[in-house]
Amino acid sequence: MLKFSESFNFHSNSNDELIMKKAMTTVQNEMQSNTIGYYKLPLDSCTHLENIKNLDTNDIKQLVIMGIGGSSLGIKAIASMLSPYTKNTKEILFLENSDPITITDTLKKIKKDEALFFIISKSGSTIETTSMLKTVIGYCKLELEGQDSKRLIVITDKGSVLSTFAQHYKLKEFNIPDNVGGRFSVLSAVGVVPLALAGFDMTGVLKGAEIFTKNFFDAKENHILQKAVYLYKNAKNESINVLFSYADNLENFTKWYVQLWGESLGKIDINGNKVGLTPIGLTGAVDQHSFLQLIIEGPENKNVTFINIEDFQVDLDIPNISLYGIEKTDFINGQSFNTLINAQCDATMQSLIDENISTDMITLDKISAKNIGKLIAYYEILTSLVGAMLEVDTYNQPGVELGKQILYRNLEK
Amino acid sequence: MLKFSESFNFHSNSNDELIMKKAMTTVQNEMQSNTIGYYKLPLDSCTHLENIKNLDTNDIKQLVIMGIGGSSLGIKAIASMLSPYTKNTKEILFLENSDPITITDTLKKIKKDEALFFIISKSGSTIETTSMLKTVIGYCKLELEGQDSKRLIVITDKGSVLSTFAQHYKLKEFNIPDNVGGRFSVLSAVGVVPLALAGFDMTGVLKGAEIFTKNFFDAKENHILQKAVYLYKNAKNESINVLFSYADNLENFTKWYVQLWGESLGKIDINGNKVGLTPIGLTGAVDQHSFLQLIIEGPENKNVTFINIEDFQVDLDIPNISLYGIEKTDFINGQSFNTLINAQCDATMQSLIDENISTDMITLDKISAKNIGKLIAYYEILTSLVGAMLEVDTYNQPGVELGKQILYRNLEK
Repeated sequence: MLKFSESFNFHSNSNDELIMKKAMTTVQNEMQSNTIGYYKLPLDSCTHLENIKNLDTNDIKQLVIMGIGGSSLGIKAIASMLSPYTKNTKEILFLENSDPITITDTLKKIKKDEALFFIISKSGSTIETTSMLKTVIGYCKLELEGQDSKRLIVITDKGSVLSTFAQHYKLKEFNIPDNVGGRFSVLSAVGVVPLALAGFDMTGVLKGAEIFTKNFFDAKENHILQKAVYLYKNAKNESINVLFSYADNLENFTKWYVQLWGESLGKIDINGNKVGLTPIGLTGAVDQHSFLQLIIEGPENKNVTFINIEDFQVDLDIPNISLYGIEKTDFINGQSFNTLINAQCDATMQSLIDENISTDMITLDKISAKNIGKLIAYYEILTSLVGAMLEVDTYNQPGVELGKQILYRNLEK
Repeated sequence: MLKFSESFNFHSNSNDELIMKKAMTTVQNEMQSNTIGYYKLPLDSCTHLENIKNLDTNDIKQLVIMGIGGSSLGIKAIASMLSPYTKNTKEILFLENSDPITITDTLKKIKKDEALFFIISKSGSTIETTSMLKTVIGYCKLELEGQDSKRLIVITDKGSVLSTFAQHYKLKEFNIPDNVGGRFSVLSAVGVVPLALAGFDMTGVLKGAEIFTKNFFDAKENHILQKAVYLYKNAKNESINVLFSYADNLENFTKWYVQLWGESLGKIDINGNKVGLTPIGLTGAVDQHSFLQLIIEGPENKNVTFINIEDFQVDLDIPNISLYGIEKTDFINGQSFNTLINAQCDATMQSLIDENISTDMITLDKISAKNIGKLIAYYEILTSLVGAMLEVDTYNQPGVELGKQILYRNLEK
C-alpha cells in the first residue's frame, strides 16, 4: 500500500484545473492512440513471463547484464529494493560503464559455465554496450555459433542492428516496443526478463503497476495531477526536486528517478525555451549529515519528496546498554532502528515544513513487489504529466546526440 | 600531477581582484590565527602515523567503522580511490545509516576476532553512531572492561562525552582538533588513522595535500581564486555546480564533495539572506545516459567541472572482433577502454562548450595518494574561498539542529 501526503497546501484555481485537464487529455491520448507504450506494459509484458518458462536455466547461477542508462538503471533499482526480501535469487553482474578498472573487476567475477549473458540496447548501437559485448566474447571465449548460443540473450528494438546480430547467430531475442523509450522501459522485456530469471517476483511488480495505472485513468489517483501542476507552476522558483528516500536499498531507485526526471523534462519546449526540473536523489538518514543544511538555509529553490518504509520487516533493537559518558542518548535504548529511521524522516520533514519548504511524503507500508510496481507507475505518470504541462517532448533526448557525434569523429580519426 | 583547465574564459576586472584579495586575506587569517585548523592537518597529522606504529594490529584483518557524514564520507572516498592501486589492504566495513536492513547485513560480516572497531564522532553524541556502538557491543559481545578494550578505537573531540567514555574504559583515543569541522576532517585522525591501519598510503595523501596547500599560499595556484570568484559572481544564475567524474571509483569522492560544498556554503549570510550553491555529483560515462540531456537542453543554471584520469594503469582493449549486424562500431576495435572513457569525457565537455555552458576540467595523470591529497586540498580551499566571498560561516551547520530537536522530542515522548 502507498500513502501520499503533502505539506504544500495546494488549492487549485480554475486556471490550474484547465492545465490539469489538458495534461490529462494529452496523457489519455498518448495511451489510447498507442503513441506512448509504457502505460500498457504492465499487461503486455506478461507474455514475457510466459515465454521465459521455456528457457532452460537450471544450471544458471549468475546473470551478466551488458547495458547502460535505461538498460540498467531500472534493473538495478528493482533488484536492490527486492533483494533483502527475496530468497534464492541469482547473482546479477552489471557491465555498464566504460571504466577499465570496473570492467576488469567484473570480468574476473564471471563464472562462464554458470552464467547467462544479456545484451540490452534499444538502438542496438550503444558504444559502451557493444564494446562490452566484444570484450565478454573475447574474455569468456563465447562461441556464439556453437555451444554458447543459448547463453546470450538479446533485448533490443525490432529491426535494430542488434536484432540483425541476434538473428544471424540464432540467439534468443526479446523486443522493446517501438513506442517505449529507454528510461520508460523497466517494465518491458528490459527489466522483466532478467529480473524474473534472477528470481524476483515480476508478476507482482507488473500487477502493482497495472493497478496503479488503472486507478489513475479511473480518476482515483488525482493527487498526481495536483502534484504535477504544483511542480509545473513552481518550475522556476523551485527548480530542484529532491527525492529523499529513507532506506539504503532505495538508492538505486533514486538514480532511476534522476534519469527519468532529468532526461524527460530537461528540454527545449515548443516555444524554443530551455526548460526542465533538476532532480536530486538523497538517502536518509545519511544525507541529513550532508545535504540537509543546504536545503534548510540555502537558496529557496528546492522542494522535497520523502519516501519512507513503515515496516522494514526485520527486527533490530538498540540494546539496553548504558555506557559511561554517553548516557545522554539512552532514551533511544530498547527502541528499534525501524522506529529510529522513521522518526528521523518525520523530524526532518517537520523541520522543512517549519522553514516553509514544500514537502510531500510517499509512505510504503512495506517493500513488496506490488508496492514497487505502483511506485514506478506513479513516477512515470507524474513525469508524463509534468512533461505535458511544460510542453516538451517527454520521450526523446536530442541533447546528447552532439556529444556522440564529437566522440565518433574524434575516435575515427 | 593535477592539471587545471577551463572554458569559462574568465577575465577578472578590478572589482573581482578586490573580492579575490579580500577572500585570500580571510583564508590567510584563518590559517595563521589557527581559527581554522584544516590547513595545517597535512603536517600535524603525521604524528598520528607515528602513534599507530605502536598499535599491535598483527591479527587484524578487518576494520569496522561506526560514523556518519564527516566521520565516514572522507574515509570512503579515499579508500575507494586508492583500493584498485593498493595491495593487501584490510577490509573496511561501515556502520553508518540507521537502516535496519543494512545494519543487519553488516553485522553478519563482522569477524570479531579479526576486527578492529572505530567509533568516530566529533561531538560524541551522534545518535546513529552511539546507537550503532551499543548494537555492536551487544551483537559481538565486546567486553570493553576486559579483553576487547584494545579492539575499540575512539576518534572524537577532546573533552567530548565520547572522550569521557574512552577514558573510563581506558580505550585508545585519537582527537580531532577543535578548529577542524567534521566535513574538513578527512586529513585529521578521522581519516588518517583508520586508512593508514587499513594499509593505504596516508603519508602520500598528506604529502600531496601539504604541497598543494603550500603552493596555494605561495600564490602558485591562483587559478583557484579565479574559479572561486567566477562561481561566486554567478552564484545566482549558475546556482548548480556539477562535478562530473569519469571514473567509477571517484563516486564516493563526489559524495564527499557534495557534503563539503552543500553544507559549507548553504547558509544564511551576514546580511540575513539564504545563499549557497547546490552540488551535484555525476559519474561518466554512465550519467551521459541520464543527467546530460538536462544539462544541455534544460535551464541554464548549471556549470560543470570534469575530472578525468589520464592513465587508469590497467590494460584492457576492445578486442578486434567484428560481429554481424553491428559492424558500425568496429572503428573502436583495438582501442583501449582507457582511451574510450577519456574520449567520452572530452567529447561531452566539448558538447557543453558548444552550448555555451561553463565548464572546467581537472586532469589527474593517474590516481595516486599524492594526487588525491592535492585534490582534497584543492576542494577544501575552494570551499573556504567561496564561503568567504559569500560572507557565510563556512564551518558551522546550524540548519540541521531543528530536526535533531524535533527527533529527540518525539523519541523521548
